[in-house]
Amino acid sequence: MLLYHDLRAPNPRRVRIFLAEKGVAYDTIEVSIAAAAHQTQEFRRKNPLALLPVLELADGKVLRESMAICRYVEDVQPEPNLFGVDPWERAQVEQWNRHAELEVFYPIAQVFRNSHTFWTGRIKQAPEFAEIMREQVAARFEWLDDELADRPYIAGSRFTVADITALCAIDFGKVSDIRIDATARPNLAAWHKRVSDRPSAKA
Amino acid sequence: MLLYHDLRAPNPRRVRIFLAEKGVAYDTIEVSIAAAAHQTQEFRRKNPLALLPVLELADGKVLRESMAICRYVEDVQPEPNLFGVDPWERAQVEQWNRHAELEVFYPIAQVFRNSHTFWTGRIKQAPEFAEIMREQVAARFEWLDDELADRPYIAGSRFTVADITALCAIDFGKVSDIRIDATARPNLAAWHKRVSDRPSAKA
Repeated sequence: MLLYHDLRAPNPRRVRIFLAEKGVAYDTIEVSIAAAAHQTQEFRRKNPLALLPVLELADGKVLRESMAICRYVEDVQPEPNLFGVDPWERAQVEQWNRHAELEVFYPIAQVFRNSHTFWTGRIKQAPEFAEIMREQVAARFEWLDDELADRPYIAGSRFTVADITALCAIDFGKVSDIRIDATARPNLAAWHKRVSDRPSAKA
Repeated sequence: MLLYHDLRAPNPRRVRIFLAEKGVAYDTIEVSIAAAAHQTQEFRRKNPLALLPVLELADGKVLRESMAICRYVEDVQPEPNLFGVDPWERAQVEQWNRHAELEVFYPIAQVFRNSHTFWTGRIKQAPEFAEIMREQVAARFEWLDDELADRPYIAGSRFTVADITALCAIDFGKVSDIRIDATARPNLAAWHKRVSDRPSAKA
């Protein structure tokens, strides 16, 4: 398998951590977003949306989306399980992975896109929306801290793909000066240390 | 099963169409967003995020997220299959369902949230971001029209959950004056008629 990725982008990191947890070997090609390498005609033949990551299989078929890649790998290499083992757990993992994505990952990404100088001059930005999303992130950190008061991981008693989504989201917040206040949000901070201490977090 | 929903909101509609395709019977409770019924303490006990839909099972357990509900139903009633039957098809359906969500549904929802008078005075709005998202939707309609030149459904040769996501997204655009131009986007318009003609579209 060949992964097209950018080492600083959060969606490729979700896939790298997932593959590390699975113990799957793969090759990589760096597609630098900073250098606009994802916008080239050559890369658009891999993904017309010009988004990363892209996974190319041995037979040349490509998957163009982080969670589609993770689900494919879960299917072809089921252990260790990261999406749930029965209908109820799978629904819980999906619920929490989507909460992590829509309530935390997306708002943090929008703060970056709409206010960071990295994008200034490259895309249209709406700084006012960045501020709305920054407030939402603060509210969601409070909500997640409450949720994590009685369980060690985002979706329940064990590590799943929902933890990977939340970790990549929150770590990506640093570039926009979004950080967990460990005094005000002790449960969230303890969870963050727990998942950051896993070897996969370095992938 | 008991579905908490709002008849005008797009995420509950995704679940209603999914259940109609499955032929599953269920009861409903209307939670009017216009009347702020989703913000009550009573409803927040069902979902602390105050979001719809919520599915309550016979044993009282709740699922608080549209795709978590759909995946649970797929697991407990596999036919007709709507998420894919093998690893490759499941990955394709996931990829296209997420494209439909992140590239079409989310931008259309943000146009509504950030520019429609429905939300004025209820949430902070960023009209500038609504315009950025309106332009993205137009670009994505062009992209989807290209994609649908050589296949009848969003994820391939048959109807899947990705079609449900795209249909609910695009129909929800009407309230923000977002419509498919059938002359400029004939493939997208033909797809829209194809999925709208299914009995489930009325759910």
